[in-house]
Amino acid sequence: MPELRRDPVIGRWVIIAKERGKRPLEFEKVKEANSVQGCPFCPGNEKFTPSEITAYGKAGRHKDSGEWTLRVVPNKYPVLQIEGSLNRQGEGIYDKMNGVGAHEVIIESPDHFKEIPELTKRQVEDVICMYKERIIDLKKDSRLEFILVFKNRGAQAGATLSHPHSQLIATPIIPKRAKEEIAGAKNHYEYKERCVYCDILGQEASSLSRVVAENEHFFAFCPFASRFPFETWILPKFHSSKFEDIQKNEVGNFAGILQAVLGRLDKVLDRPPFNFIIHNSPLKDPHVPYFHWYLEIIPKLIHVAGFEWGTGFYVNPTPPEEAAKFLREAE
Amino acid sequence: MPELRRDPVIGRWVIIAKERGKRPLEFEKVKEANSVQGCPFCPGNEKFTPSEITAYGKAGRHKDSGEWTLRVVPNKYPVLQIEGSLNRQGEGIYDKMNGVGAHEVIIESPDHFKEIPELTKRQVEDVICMYKERIIDLKKDSRLEFILVFKNRGAQAGATLSHPHSQLIATPIIPKRAKEEIAGAKNHYEYKERCVYCDILGQEASSLSRVVAENEHFFAFCPFASRFPFETWILPKFHSSKFEDIQKNEVGNFAGILQAVLGRLDKVLDRPPFNFIIHNSPLKDPHVPYFHWYLEIIPKLIHVAGFEWGTGFYVNPTPPEEAAKFLREAE
Repeated sequence: MPELRRDPVIGRWVIIAKERGKRPLEFEKVKEANSVQGCPFCPGNEKFTPSEITAYGKAGRHKDSGEWTLRVVPNKYPVLQIEGSLNRQGEGIYDKMNGVGAHEVIIESPDHFKEIPELTKRQVEDVICMYKERIIDLKKDSRLEFILVFKNRGAQAGATLSHPHSQLIATPIIPKRAKEEIAGAKNHYEYKERCVYCDILGQEASSLSRVVAENEHFFAFCPFASRFPFETWILPKFHSSKFEDIQKNEVGNFAGILQAVLGRLDKVLDRPPFNFIIHNSPLKDPHVPYFHWYLEIIPKLIHVAGFEWGTGFYVNPTPPEEAAKFLREAE
Repeated sequence: MPELRRDPVIGRWVIIAKERGKRPLEFEKVKEANSVQGCPFCPGNEKFTPSEITAYGKAGRHKDSGEWTLRVVPNKYPVLQIEGSLNRQGEGIYDKMNGVGAHEVIIESPDHFKEIPELTKRQVEDVICMYKERIIDLKKDSRLEFILVFKNRGAQAGATLSHPHSQLIATPIIPKRAKEEIAGAKNHYEYKERCVYCDILGQEASSLSRVVAENEHFFAFCPFASRFPFETWILPKFHSSKFEDIQKNEVGNFAGILQAVLGRLDKVLDRPPFNFIIHNSPLKDPHVPYFHWYLEIIPKLIHVAGFEWGTGFYVNPTPPEEAAKFLREAE
């Protein structure tokens, strides 16, 4: 069972994933497994993953058979486990609890080589619908407080398998980063009685220097205070604090802009490693006027170094206005 | 002039370093310059760095000549610049200011190949004394609020030159990370009337499962809630909120434990890339009973991925008790 431990100064929780337990010289050898041979996410190899949670595919197909178009499985090496109780306890001055939660893998399509920009729009819509379905399902588990949907592409971004996939991790506490963001947004709302993200949308739509793409429901841009080169956010133009409330016609537009933006990043940066993350409300929060969900894309182009770790202050060598210009012109 | 920009939600400042301006395909090619040929930090090549700020060396030597044992120069590509005024201003809903500050490089010795564990103890004492001197000197500049002393070793840890060196960056605002740490420590103090770091020392010294090394004045251990495998902290055993108050006899013991700990990390992890950071009080803070300076070492063994970026929640695959055991046994 993984263990959650709390830093006694900062209050940050850390997951000590004993089951993944690495000995000193095992670190360097970790490379992304790239080949189709033995890929546990390719059709026909279903037996190499834990038994599926759900899937889209042929009507009447058997569980864990090959006739799927999208498949969700538990992570084989989960950072948090679904069984058990939290069992909060002290250890001297420290606090810890059991690593209860969920860690799932969304295998985006049967094709080992097709990333989101190369899939059909319908396939990308399925990926988005599955994110929504999984959140709605896991919400029923009252032990869970927060779900992060994310994607790691490339070994530099933390991926260990190259077959295109996304992940979700459900945590039994609201993470520090989410709390900070919500507190900041709430603060703005209390002062101005406006959603800060709606304000950002308004400003970006009027200046246009950082815009990357837009459609009926979504707006993509490189944020004013981008921490990383080519960092890009996709925001719904309508106010919504919960990703899982996305409607059918919005799903199509979200799929379209996600394909467009990732395609341009691939073109401009020659298929960079990246992470994307959906920033969303905590599971038990009601609809609120101050928070606004969005997807953040971080290409992995630079190494985070001592200054960033020590201060939380990021140094970005590419102004977002320049990054946005490259991405706009890549259309 | 670099530009400081504030994230409107989180309040995090970012440095947009336009002068370092990177075009899309320049990122991949950045590798650490490893050879002695043309190394700007080797003796005889002083003309390849900006003119020195200070140095230790032969009595009566000329500035920027070769007869030095330790040399401090401005960073050639500074993330913050010493000239100019802050000029805080708005840009629509956003806040920005000029990137005023200091960015210096401490070239630890003339030897291109000797890292801290291989230097003489006297040389490491000089490095520590220089950190102290530079902080005391820069403190006189009232525009500056905080100084981070740090070291990046290896390309994976953000180093671009391999000749052993440390750096310092002085910022015109107190960084978010420092504020959080001080707020956490203050909170503990208000509740318990004890320094949280002194409490941690007490607990670690009694359990011993995470201890790495100790001497008369210092204690090294892998923290209970380590974010990274083999993360190690070195704390003074005496309470002190300001690194720059370190006394002559303490400098010797700090040099000794730093050499021992870095030497063991090199042995156990086969010379890993790493960052070290000195956590210190803001420049204008008085001596306080709630904060305690320390040095944090982060070996770069794993990639930070989507989950960590999205939640601030770290997954560490090596329990600190195991890491400490390997480091103790490497003596």
